[in-house]
Amino acid sequence: MNVMKTSVIRFIAACTLAAVTPFAHSADGATAETIAARLRDQAIRGDSTAWDFVSELSTRFGPRPAGSASELAAAQWSAKKLAALGFENVRVDSFPITAWVRGIEHAEIVAPSPQPLTVASLGGAPATPPGGVEGEVVSFANLDALKAAAPGSLAGKIALVAFHMPRTQDGSGYGFAVAARAYGPIEAAKRGALGFMIRSVGTGGHRFAHAGATRYENGRVPIPAFAISEPDGDQIERLAALGEKIRVRLTSNARYVPSSSSYNVSGEIRGAARPNEVIVLGAHLDSWDLGTGAIDDGAGCAIITAAAKLARSAPRKPQRTIRVVLYGSEEITQPTDVLQGGRAYLEAHRADLATHIAAGESDFGAGRVYSVSLTKGAMDSQFGQALLRVLAPLGIVPTTSAPQGGSDVGPLGAAGVPLFDLNQDGTKYFDFHHTADDTLDKIEPAALAQNVAAWTALAWLIADSDADLRALAAR
Amino acid sequence: MNVMKTSVIRFIAACTLAAVTPFAHSADGATAETIAARLRDQAIRGDSTAWDFVSELSTRFGPRPAGSASELAAAQWSAKKLAALGFENVRVDSFPITAWVRGIEHAEIVAPSPQPLTVASLGGAPATPPGGVEGEVVSFANLDALKAAAPGSLAGKIALVAFHMPRTQDGSGYGFAVAARAYGPIEAAKRGALGFMIRSVGTGGHRFAHAGATRYENGRVPIPAFAISEPDGDQIERLAALGEKIRVRLTSNARYVPSSSSYNVSGEIRGAARPNEVIVLGAHLDSWDLGTGAIDDGAGCAIITAAAKLARSAPRKPQRTIRVVLYGSEEITQPTDVLQGGRAYLEAHRADLATHIAAGESDFGAGRVYSVSLTKGAMDSQFGQALLRVLAPLGIVPTTSAPQGGSDVGPLGAAGVPLFDLNQDGTKYFDFHHTADDTLDKIEPAALAQNVAAWTALAWLIADSDADLRALAAR
Repeated sequence: MNVMKTSVIRFIAACTLAAVTPFAHSADGATAETIAARLRDQAIRGDSTAWDFVSELSTRFGPRPAGSASELAAAQWSAKKLAALGFENVRVDSFPITAWVRGIEHAEIVAPSPQPLTVASLGGAPATPPGGVEGEVVSFANLDALKAAAPGSLAGKIALVAFHMPRTQDGSGYGFAVAARAYGPIEAAKRGALGFMIRSVGTGGHRFAHAGATRYENGRVPIPAFAISEPDGDQIERLAALGEKIRVRLTSNARYVPSSSSYNVSGEIRGAARPNEVIVLGAHLDSWDLGTGAIDDGAGCAIITAAAKLARSAPRKPQRTIRVVLYGSEEITQPTDVLQGGRAYLEAHRADLATHIAAGESDFGAGRVYSVSLTKGAMDSQFGQALLRVLAPLGIVPTTSAPQGGSDVGPLGAAGVPLFDLNQDGTKYFDFHHTADDTLDKIEPAALAQNVAAWTALAWLIADSDADLRALAAR
Repeated sequence: MNVMKTSVIRFIAACTLAAVTPFAHSADGATAETIAARLRDQAIRGDSTAWDFVSELSTRFGPRPAGSASELAAAQWSAKKLAALGFENVRVDSFPITAWVRGIEHAEIVAPSPQPLTVASLGGAPATPPGGVEGEVVSFANLDALKAAAPGSLAGKIALVAFHMPRTQDGSGYGFAVAARAYGPIEAAKRGALGFMIRSVGTGGHRFAHAGATRYENGRVPIPAFAISEPDGDQIERLAALGEKIRVRLTSNARYVPSSSSYNVSGEIRGAARPNEVIVLGAHLDSWDLGTGAIDDGAGCAIITAAAKLARSAPRKPQRTIRVVLYGSEEITQPTDVLQGGRAYLEAHRADLATHIAAGESDFGAGRVYSVSLTKGAMDSQFGQALLRVLAPLGIVPTTSAPQGGSDVGPLGAAGVPLFDLNQDGTKYFDFHHTADDTLDKIEPAALAQNVAAWTALAWLIADSDADLRALAAR
C-alpha cells in the first residue's frame, strides 16, 4: 500500500506537465488512466466474457423469478462462474422473501363481441375468484384522472388507466408512467373497483403485456390487477369510440409462497493497497417470469462481471477492491416491504458502510452508454476529468443530473455511499422490458461490449484512485 | 350494351392518334383509362372506406376463426356494410365445415432446466393426452433432413424442424419454408415421433408463435404439432450447443366441431352493358384465432370493398360486373379436403364460370403494391399497356411471373378463369402473419390507400374493357 503511494509521489515529481493526480501508476510506468484506456480498448476489441455470461445465463435457466428454483440454480451457476473467472471471496447470501407465482391467467372482452385480451397479472396482485371478475370497463387517461373519480363510482367496475407511455432515450417516459402501475390498483380499489387494468407501461406496439410490480397497502394489493398490451389498449379505445360499452372478464390464480428465499451473489477483485475499500458494481440476477431476463438484467450481470474480470487482467491489481454484487429479488415488491436484494445487502453491510467508496448499477439493458453522472464534486475533480477523458472515445459525455444508482444500490446511496451512473440509451429498452420478448437476440453484441468498456474504465479508475468520493460529493 | 359498343367505335374513329382500344368512354368523353386514373387519384387523396372497414371489422369482432360465432357475426356485419355502400345482390352463402378450436395449450422445456416455451398448436392438429406428450427433442435443419431420418428413429421423441425462414419482398421465403409446416407432422409421425414442433414460419424475431394449418393424411393430422417462436427456436439451438439434451412437454386440448358452417359474403357493382360478365375481387373474412385478422385478411377485404365502391362512384357504370367476394374458411384446411370458401364458391358457380372474366385476390396484408402480374397475352395487349400506364404513378411495374391468384380464387384459376395479381411488398408481412400481433396498428394507412388505388384502377379497367382475357391468356 505504501509502495504504491510512494510511486504516485515519484511520478508526480517526475512529470512537470502533469497536474497533481489521485492515481497510482504501474511498475511499467503506466498511469491508472493509461491502464483504464487499455482495458477500455481491450473490451471493445472483443472480450467475450459478457456475451458468454448473458447467453448461458438466459439460455440455461430462462426466467429467474425471485424465490424460484431457477433463481437458485442461476445463483449457484453464477457463483461458480465468478470463481472460474478468478474472483475471490465468492459468496451466495440468502435472505427470506415471500415469492409471488403467476398461475394461469386470461382475460377477454365479453361484450359487445367476445374476443381475447393479451394480459399479464401485475406482480404481487392477488388471484381473482375462480370464475374471474367481470365488469364494465371505466377508462381513465392517467392516474390523476383515476384519483379524481368519486368514491364508490367504480363499484362493480373494472378500472383501466390507458396512458400511452412516451418513448424517450433516458427512460423518463417510464418514470412518468409507472406510478399508475404502482398505485393504480390501490386507487381503483378505494373507489370500489372489482379489478384494475393498465395499458402496458412500455413501448413498441407489439402484442405483449409488460409485467411489473404493483404496490401493497396495509400488507396487500387490494384487487386483481393486470397489464394489457398496447394493441389491446388501442382495441378498447376504438370500441369505446364506436359507442360501445365494454365488459371484460379477468381471471388469475396467482399465489404467494411465504418463507421462500432469494440470493445475493458476490465476488471480488481484491485491492492491492487498500482492500477494505470497496467499489460495488451491482446488477440483478432475478428476472420477470415471462421472458428470459436477457436485457433485464442478465445484460447488467454480464457487463459488471466482464468489467471486473477485465480489471483483474490489468498488469497490476488496483489499490481498492472491486466487488460485483448480483442481487436477488429486485423485481418483486415484498408485501411487508422488508427485504429485497438491495436491502438485504445493506443490512448485511451496516458495519462496513464507511469503507464502501462508491456504488453503481447496470440495470437498463444493453443499449450504449451515452453519458456519465457523478456527484458535482467528483465530476469537477481530477478524478472526474480523467474519467471523462477515458470515456470520451466511447461517445460518453458528462451530465449534470445527480447519480441515481438503481433499485439495488439505491439503499447504499441513501445510507451515504457515493453513487455513479453510466446512463444507457433506453430508446428501445421498453419495447421488451418485462415481456416474454426479453430474450438474448434483443442484445446487440457491439453495444454490450461498449458497456463493458465503460464499466471497466470507470471501475478501474475509482479502484485505483486515492480520490475521496465522499468528500468530493460533499463539496 | 350496344350503345356502349357504338360509343367505342365512334371514339376510335374520332381519335386519329389513339390506337385501337378495347375501352369504352363516358358521356363526358372520358375514356376508361382516364376514369381509372381519376379513381386511382381519388383513392390516394383519401377515401376512408378501406381504413374504416378494416378498423371496425378487426376491432368489433377481433379474431374470426372459421366456424366461430365471430366469423358469422363478421359475415353479417360485412353484408350490411356492403349494402350500405351501395353494392347490389349482397349475399351470405353458407357452406359446411369441420371447425377446429384451439383450447388451452402450453409447452415447456423440462430438462436440463425447466422453462416455458411460447407455442401455438398448428391448425388442425389433434389434442395431446391430458398430461401432454413429453420427449427428447430431435432437431432437423429442414424438412428434407427429417425425411432422411430412418423409420422408427423418432420413437418416443419430439421432432423439431428448425429452419430459419428468410425475409423476402415477394413472400418466396414463406413459400420455401411452409412445406415443413404442412408435411412435417406426417413425416415425423411416420418415423415414430410423439409430437412435432416447427420453428415458426415467420420473421421478425419476436416471441410470437406463428400459427398456420398443417395437412391431413387419411383424414387426420397424425400427431400433436406446434409452432414455437423464433426466440424459442434460438434457445433450443443454444442449449444444444451447450451440449445439453433437451426434453420438452407439449400440451393441447384442441378439438374439432363437425357440422359447423362458414360463409362467403358477396356483393356486386353491376355492369351497365354486360352485367353477366363478372370480375371477381377476392379476399377472406376468416382469420386465425390468435390475432385480430387485421393484416390477414381484414386489409384485403377492406381494399377490394373500397376499390369496388370507388368504381361505383365513377360518372358511369362499368360495362361488366365487379363482384366482391369475402371468403370464409380460407385459413384452416379441412379434414376431408371438401370445402373451403374458394371451393364452395367454385361449386356454386360451375354453371356460370364461362362468364367469369377474371379473378384476383388481396391476401398479403397492406404492404404497397409494387408489381402486377397478368398472363403474357394480357400484359402485351392494349388493355395491359393501358393498365401499366395507370399503375405506373403508383410505383407499380410489370412482372413476367404468371399470376397465381391466391387460396380463394385459385380454384377459379384452375377451372380456367384468367387470374391477375397485384403483388404487394411482403418484407414485413411475416413479422405478424398468423400471430397474436396481427392487429390494426400494423397497417400503414398510406400503403392501404395505395392498394385501394391499384385495385380500383385495375378493376375499373377490366370491367370497362371489351378485352377477352381468356383469349389473351391463350396467346
